[in-house]
Amino acid sequence: MITCPAPLGPDGTIQLAHGGGGRLSRALLDEIILPAFDSGPKGDRHDSAVFDVAAGKLAFTADGYVVRPIFFPGGDIGKLAVCGTVNDLAMAGARPQYLSAAFVLEEGLPIDDLRRVLASMRDAARAAGVRVVTGDTKVVDRGKGDGIFVHTSGVGHVPRGVDVRPARVRPGDVILVSGDVGRHGVAVLSVREGLAFDGAPESDCAPLVAPVQALVEAGVDLHCLRDLTRGGLASALNEIALDGGVRLDVEESAVPVHEGVSSACELLGIDPLYVANEGRFVAFVAHADAARALEILRAHPVSAGAAMIGRVEAQGRGAVHLRGPLGGTRLLDLLSGEQLPRIC
Amino acid sequence: MITCPAPLGPDGTIQLAHGGGGRLSRALLDEIILPAFDSGPKGDRHDSAVFDVAAGKLAFTADGYVVRPIFFPGGDIGKLAVCGTVNDLAMAGARPQYLSAAFVLEEGLPIDDLRRVLASMRDAARAAGVRVVTGDTKVVDRGKGDGIFVHTSGVGHVPRGVDVRPARVRPGDVILVSGDVGRHGVAVLSVREGLAFDGAPESDCAPLVAPVQALVEAGVDLHCLRDLTRGGLASALNEIALDGGVRLDVEESAVPVHEGVSSACELLGIDPLYVANEGRFVAFVAHADAARALEILRAHPVSAGAAMIGRVEAQGRGAVHLRGPLGGTRLLDLLSGEQLPRIC
Repeated sequence: MITCPAPLGPDGTIQLAHGGGGRLSRALLDEIILPAFDSGPKGDRHDSAVFDVAAGKLAFTADGYVVRPIFFPGGDIGKLAVCGTVNDLAMAGARPQYLSAAFVLEEGLPIDDLRRVLASMRDAARAAGVRVVTGDTKVVDRGKGDGIFVHTSGVGHVPRGVDVRPARVRPGDVILVSGDVGRHGVAVLSVREGLAFDGAPESDCAPLVAPVQALVEAGVDLHCLRDLTRGGLASALNEIALDGGVRLDVEESAVPVHEGVSSACELLGIDPLYVANEGRFVAFVAHADAARALEILRAHPVSAGAAMIGRVEAQGRGAVHLRGPLGGTRLLDLLSGEQLPRIC
Repeated sequence: MITCPAPLGPDGTIQLAHGGGGRLSRALLDEIILPAFDSGPKGDRHDSAVFDVAAGKLAFTADGYVVRPIFFPGGDIGKLAVCGTVNDLAMAGARPQYLSAAFVLEEGLPIDDLRRVLASMRDAARAAGVRVVTGDTKVVDRGKGDGIFVHTSGVGHVPRGVDVRPARVRPGDVILVSGDVGRHGVAVLSVREGLAFDGAPESDCAPLVAPVQALVEAGVDLHCLRDLTRGGLASALNEIALDGGVRLDVEESAVPVHEGVSSACELLGIDPLYVANEGRFVAFVAHADAARALEILRAHPVSAGAAMIGRVEAQGRGAVHLRGPLGGTRLLDLLSGEQLPRIC
């Protein structure tokens, strides 16, 4: 436990000077931010992190996180910022290795809130097997931000032979989902709207590295992967259908939805298929690989609830068809408006 | 020129739905953001960019940009966001290759402002020889942001034999600065404070890749490099002195300062040595290399005003001594407070 109140300023909150590049900036970095990560010796500290890479394919991604509130059941903005970026790398079939973490802090943010967020980031990074090696901190005046925004970016090694992208999706491919959908959005919304109900779900926010690496190591030919973040399952499927130029058929009753999520969605008038997740993904694999892939997913706690939900019907104009429990089919479209602002 | 007003929404400003992951999000991405960068075919579009790397050392860095106002003489937040991250890579001796670009947009931002920022980013990326390959866009409600915040991260290849960090600084090393200091901060401040005066300088914001690569290719053994951003020359020297455990001696009269910057600083009551730059750096090189390094710097437009400003005196407790024009010496300390908020 580091206790060093004097150099951090008088009242335990973030001040503009914490972002000014002077003594208070350095104190914030040395006392609060760097101790949360494995930052190496001072003499090696620099504007860039430098590390060795093997020849091959590297995946690189970046995301911003503006979730409101910053603490929610099952996680916080820090856990989200690590898992989200780690998962984007995993969705390229990569083994995530290094992350950056950059903060926009609003003047007046309690420094203890920052400590909690950093501790979550450290824990999530350890769980995902990545190191946070570089970053940045900016401070904006009161009323020009919202407590804390986090940006993370990451790099990871893509194993030889892995080629995961919408263009590889083929008619006949089976669509797997790694678990029940809608928990993250409902968890955030329930605390934001002050809804407390029995069986309210926690966020599914978690790193997806282990199941994806297991699929890769087992030699499953992954055609496409996509995590089900903003816009949920429906949006992810639509993006892949549009970018890959394929028509997808999904069986509505095959999509797992937790009972608490269903009830909450009914109450809130939203569709769980469009609700954000932060620990769920879809995998497109050849029919011959599907049963084996499902078995591998179910062996990992984070994807124990995996299910087959549909298949790729045909090449052509991108569209997603949803087959209802009574046999009728409707178009599962992209949403026009905004269902859930500031969910990630 | 792309004109597609309907899918972007009614009034030419950013709405919450542009960040929701639905149809408006996709329109913003397809119509405005991706056309600014070389994003490749849709079927290859994915959460991560994937590219080939050679075996060796990779530099990786990330920074956030919250400058106010977003447009200033000599640049804007977009140019700044590309140059700043490219320069952090260059300061590791790396050749910058790939960037990410992530945006936090405030509801109500004119879409034309976003277009201008993106055009600047594209131009700066071309000038620096890098590709923007991945990114993200979030929207926050009115009053929870400030128009636009940009985060960029980048990766670049570090040539064999290059090892640039504070721990390599040695007594006897010569300190070079790549040009006159203080332009960026004064340019931003002059427009923010509504000061218009004759000879007001523009920001020095520029990519520093060319002179650094020239030093590397000429075989100059670069011990340490640091760009003079927040906190200016004084803070950069202090950081290196502290992290490298060395005492630096700097000749005040040898530090180039443009006349317009001097006058503005006098008027504003600030010290140009602490004012942020976005296109200046210091280089620490062995005495034997100094004259050659200076010649190489002066051959590049962006560092044509390079000068020797001091040397590394001794190992020990980190400190920077400034020798005045009359021979007296004072401690050039880290600033305690905040001199210039939201300068980058």
